[in-house]
This record gives sequence, C-alpha cells and structure tokens, in this order.
Amino acid sequence: MKLAAAEASTGVRKRHGGPFGAVIVRSGRVAARAHNAVIKTCDPTAHAEITAIRKASAKLKTFDLSGAELYTTCEPCPMCLAAILWARIGRVYFGCTRRDAEKIGFRDNLFYEKMRVRIRPGGIRLIPLGRRECLKVFREWADTLDKVRY
Amino acid sequence: MKLAAAEASTGVRKRHGGPFGAVIVRSGRVAARAHNAVIKTCDPTAHAEITAIRKASAKLKTFDLSGAELYTTCEPCPMCLAAILWARIGRVYFGCTRRDAEKIGFRDNLFYEKMRVRIRPGGIRLIPLGRRECLKVFREWADTLDKVRY
Repeated sequence: MKLAAAEASTGVRKRHGGPFGAVIVRSGRVAARAHNAVIKTCDPTAHAEITAIRKASAKLKTFDLSGAELYTTCEPCPMCLAAILWARIGRVYFGCTRRDAEKIGFRDNLFYEKMRVRIRPGGIRLIPLGRRECLKVFREWADTLDKVRY
Repeated sequence: MKLAAAEASTGVRKRHGGPFGAVIVRSGRVAARAHNAVIKTCDPTAHAEITAIRKASAKLKTFDLSGAELYTTCEPCPMCLAAILWARIGRVYFGCTRRDAEKIGFRDNLFYEKMRVRIRPGGIRLIPLGRRECLKVFREWADTLDKVRY
C-alpha cells in the first residue's frame, strides 16, 4: 500500500490526474503499478486500477489475473470494480473510502448512488488498509492550486 | 448501429474478442469506432465501449465527451456504464440485452446481479435500437468453434 500511495503522490506532483495509485501483486511479486492519468492522457478510463490491470495483463500475457491481489489508495469506483471482476481478481485492499474521495471533489460516491452498486458477499473481498497513509495524498491533491478537476 | 454491428462482426472474424462493437458520434460525426479486443490484447478492460471512449477522447483531446452519443451492439456492462458516466456521455443506444449476452456465455448479467446495478432515472438515457441486427453477430460468435472464452 505504501507503493500505491507513492504512485498516487507521483501522479499528483506530475499533474497526471487525481490522487490515486494502485499496485497488483501476483505470486508475491509486483506485476504492475500505476497512478491515475486522466488529465495527462485525456482518457476518462485511465484510473489507477484500470491502468494497473492493463499493465499486469500485458506483462503476464493474460486477461485472467486470478490469484492476484490489488492494492489501491481508494475504494474502487464502479468502473474499476467491474474491471476487477472481469480480470478475476478476488482480493482488493483499499486505503481511503469513496466518501473521502467525495470530500475532495470526486464523483465515485455519486456513481455508486446513481448505479446503486452493492457487492454481494461471495464476490470480491474488499479489505480496508492504510487509510491514514492514503489520506495524506488526498490532502496533497486538495492543497494543489493549479489542478484540473474532472 | 449498423457500423457498430459491422465492427462487432469484424472482431469475431479476426478472433479479437467477443461479438461487441461500439461507435461514438459527436456533432453528427463518428468520433470513434471499436470492437471488443480482450483476446487479442490480453486486456480484460478492452471492451468495445471502453476502447471507443479511449479513442474518441484521444482524437478530441478531452476526457469530457459531453454531448456525444454512444451506439453499442449490447447493453453496456457495469464497467462500461461507469466509464460512460465518467466520460459524461448522456445517451446510449444499445442492440442486444445483457440477457442475450448471458445466453452466449458472457458474465455481464452476473455482474449486474453481483453489483446490484440500477440506473436511477435522470442518469444516462439507455435506448434500445437494432437488436435483431446485433443478434446476428451474437449468432456468428455462437457458431464460431475455435473461440476463446473469457
């Protein structure tokens, strides 16, 4: 999660996008790390989790990431959550919550409300981890004056 | 929608992925067209809609596709639906339904059930269009013997 938070911080400092980072681990090794790059790439789907999944899939040459674990600095939005399902990743550690993200101006929680997303037991395991560390990067974003909102 | 169906059919024939195609129109012009390429690219996020959004955003140099319309041969899965929300696309025409997709082996409907996705009125407008045309490509997929399932 420290690696994910470092990625998020890099993304904020480089003005690539929102304060979000993700790391995918498989067989005890980092398969991919990524940060949000919506602003840099002009790509609304370039969330940290989506980008990490794309990188890990490309590296491991498979669309099936069964057995991998994903560490993300914030509870995944519904897009990323469904991408995690498609990739067959069963375990997700997350730092900040969707409500933390809402407080700094992101629409994740709105989409959860709009889409009425609920994960039934037996689906993905979502495990809180390191929220304090990840909130630091949220504050970094909040304190950035020349940011582009999306 | 005919263009989207043609894309889907191309994807099936080239063995790029499932029988799904999408077209994004803005200001009366085609901004992007794409087909599912999960198999070809080993990327579980390479759905037709996600790829079309990425292409249109890159072409128009913006992550904000407000005012654009998306034509897709099948009701978008929750990942694509949330991507459409992030991209601010307000109107979506779809051919086949998630249940049609389930019948040929795709998990879209399962994910809708698992995530309990509901779109509240006032969100994206989802408009059925050309299901018969799109079902033809589903049959093409069903009749393909050497396909990779995902």
